Amino acid sequence: MVAVIAFDGDDTLWHSETRFAEAQQHFRGILAPYADPARADDALYAIEAANMALFGYGAKAFTLSMVETAIELSDGRVPAEEIARLLEVGKRLLDHPVELLDGASDALEQLSASHRVLLITKGDLLHQERKLAASGLAKHFDRVAIVSEKDPPTYADIIAQERVPPEEFVMVGNSVRSDVLPVLAVGGRAVHVPHEITWAHEQVPDAQVQAATFPRLAGIAQLPDLIRQGLAGPHAHARG
Amino acid sequence: MVAVIAFDGDDTLWHSETRFAEAQQHFRGILAPYADPARADDALYAIEAANMALFGYGAKAFTLSMVETAIELSDGRVPAEEIARLLEVGKRLLDHPVELLDGASDALEQLSASHRVLLITKGDLLHQERKLAASGLAKHFDRVAIVSEKDPPTYADIIAQERVPPEEFVMVGNSVRSDVLPVLAVGGRAVHVPHEITWAHEQVPDAQVQAATFPRLAGIAQLPDLIRQGLAGPHAHARG
Repeated sequence: MVAVIAFDGDDTLWHSETRFAEAQQHFRGILAPYADPARADDALYAIEAANMALFGYGAKAFTLSMVETAIELSDGRVPAEEIARLLEVGKRLLDHPVELLDGASDALEQLSASHRVLLITKGDLLHQERKLAASGLAKHFDRVAIVSEKDPPTYADIIAQERVPPEEFVMVGNSVRSDVLPVLAVGGRAVHVPHEITWAHEQVPDAQVQAATFPRLAGIAQLPDLIRQGLAGPHAHARG
Repeated sequence: MVAVIAFDGDDTLWHSETRFAEAQQHFRGILAPYADPARADDALYAIEAANMALFGYGAKAFTLSMVETAIELSDGRVPAEEIARLLEVGKRLLDHPVELLDGASDALEQLSASHRVLLITKGDLLHQERKLAASGLAKHFDRVAIVSEKDPPTYADIIAQERVPPEEFVMVGNSVRSDVLPVLAVGGRAVHVPHEITWAHEQVPDAQVQAATFPRLAGIAQLPDLIRQGLAGPHAHARG
């Protein structure tokens, strides 16, 4: 039995990584006089990772790390007007229209009629709220949790607050690292709906994925059927 | 009767504005070749206000606005290494040790023994969580709400979730704009504990303050007595 269905937002219900990839494309262009694209990407990733404990996830953290990387890779030679362009790239990322993934609205409409439905998302608090409002999906959610980290304690807290046994809680999302493994770790269930792009930080070693068992869907449109079958559909065994 | 007591965090339980003021002092120094301190402050405040709807509150928003202001006020002449210094100022702000206000810990210890106690704070999600963890006060709170805006709908939602009549809900904080007026607007009660510094954005016109009636305390140490008296102490009538 499934009592509560929780959804990730970014790249599960609406596009996000595509927007970050576009922003990073601009970043590479601005850095072109100082570094080739691969070096620019590697340096940005390293600086994002180093800043993670302090900045957390989201577009403001990403923008601050782009600026820091530009200064570092150019040895301080990047002109202020190019840094201003990076700030603009960050603002466009925060202000981008929300584009829903195929089937997200239908799946939510069906499932919210029969189940308690949550949104569990991480990133900038205000940005996530703005995206939810712009998505038109807010009416389907019984509860919205914007969290700083999707780890086992976070999921354990949410499941406890929902007052359901963990095995009646299902998390649906595109990230094995954030939406699947930590939920399984606390006895919950999870459905993986991969997205075409996964941010390097969200990637997990194949061995870890293969050791876990969870359904994987080609698209969120297939979710209502899977839930009706009690998660025991043909996809119930996943491979990395 | 008071059923729920909610506390603001920044400048109510721990110092915050003092840290932002120190950061802004560094900002003025870096901008000194291009603008006098008053002009630097005015420009920063205008840019923070313009970015508010997109960036929200908090140290990352502040840092991005400092960088934007530095580029604008210097007409793009500020060297990248000075921008790197602004990023460092922002990181120090995010990583600063938490310093409790006098009496905060005692007041929470007393009141959490007899009442349901909440923290309601705004700003960067991760930064607020880190400050709460570092404060040692987390154990006193029955619930923590980190919100993007402290307006009447936010308070109405929280009070509804608490399932208490608004008149049994008391908010305690240093900001008349964020902690007092919006709570009174939804029928709740509020106690103002002013802090020595108030960010310009949080200031409200005197007329608005004088039209409202709420207790004002010289320090949070006086709160337990005021609550025991049912909020009807000698401070029950405030003046701007």
